[in-house]
Amino acid sequence: MDTSRFSSYLRSHADIDPNIIGQLLGQCSIQKVAKGDFLLRTDERCKHSFFVEIGLLKQYIIDSKGKEHIIQFAPEDWIVSDRESIFYDQPSTYFIQAVEDTFVSTISQEEIDRLSLSSPEFMKFNNRLLNNHIRQLQKRIIQLLGASAEERYLDFIKVYPDLTQRIPQTLIASFLGITPESLSRVRKELAR
Amino acid sequence: MDTSRFSSYLRSHADIDPNIIGQLLGQCSIQKVAKGDFLLRTDERCKHSFFVEIGLLKQYIIDSKGKEHIIQFAPEDWIVSDRESIFYDQPSTYFIQAVEDTFVSTISQEEIDRLSLSSPEFMKFNNRLLNNHIRQLQKRIIQLLGASAEERYLDFIKVYPDLTQRIPQTLIASFLGITPESLSRVRKELAR
Repeated sequence: MDTSRFSSYLRSHADIDPNIIGQLLGQCSIQKVAKGDFLLRTDERCKHSFFVEIGLLKQYIIDSKGKEHIIQFAPEDWIVSDRESIFYDQPSTYFIQAVEDTFVSTISQEEIDRLSLSSPEFMKFNNRLLNNHIRQLQKRIIQLLGASAEERYLDFIKVYPDLTQRIPQTLIASFLGITPESLSRVRKELAR
Repeated sequence: MDTSRFSSYLRSHADIDPNIIGQLLGQCSIQKVAKGDFLLRTDERCKHSFFVEIGLLKQYIIDSKGKEHIIQFAPEDWIVSDRESIFYDQPSTYFIQAVEDTFVSTISQEEIDRLSLSSPEFMKFNNRLLNNHIRQLQKRIIQLLGASAEERYLDFIKVYPDLTQRIPQTLIASFLGITPESLSRVRKELAR
């Protein structure tokens, strides 16, 4: 396994000088995370971003009652990290765990900062990632405040087209903030 | 009314050359928005960020059933904009409206982009704003997924210490994603 998927992603999503892309990839390392293993645990400091080459990650918290709440799934071509922990140099409140055997391209925040300073195009690309993240998070808040179980599920299918086949229904229900029973009812209604 | 509050904010929150701060403030304009008036309506393109000098704004959507969902309040020292509309040059899905008579320092995205390219410190500051925004949004998602009405209200008081005195309970309940009855119950319990 190599960084080839990350390489294609950068070439097609970012208007960056190939030399800069080369520098970035040169600093990436490939990491294997077996199903159930962690890339980050709560109370650790996050220092890296992870691009999923193959596999599936979930980022979640455990609340005070011990219940898991999934903030994000990251299948192929997604980038995941705890920006809060990185940026404020604080212990993380999240877990990042492999739902399937996963390979990630790992890039340090130091390298991202260095490239942002030396390349305006890279800075713009990094900015786009941040804005994209904000867009998704806002959409999710709006959904949690107002959308029906059916609307949430339909949006989930749009964002994560193949995940319904890859993960248990209980995980999807947790992500959507609905009960597994509601999810099952919605799926039955949509199947008709 | 002038940009003096924004000026103090920049001097105390950003490690930026005073010349750059001067350039930024020189490009700001002060705008008065009367209570009930709009800085942005859905379907308009957002081109600016707004720093609240005095007053209070709310950013919200109207869902398909005509119900209002508040994504953010912005009292003094808060910055509000629709980053999604700005960044992707798309019609906004949000309204930004004055809850009280408000004065804002208005700054164009063009100027933010220009300063980000010419000053690494400004780029870092802008990045901090983006990361801070992500932090808040994630916190809100976690809360909507898992926190009790009481936990949500206590966090609201922490983030917006004086807003409980400034806005109707119905607006707070809408922001928290709970019913006005739940909010009233929580407040009574906490008062004991």
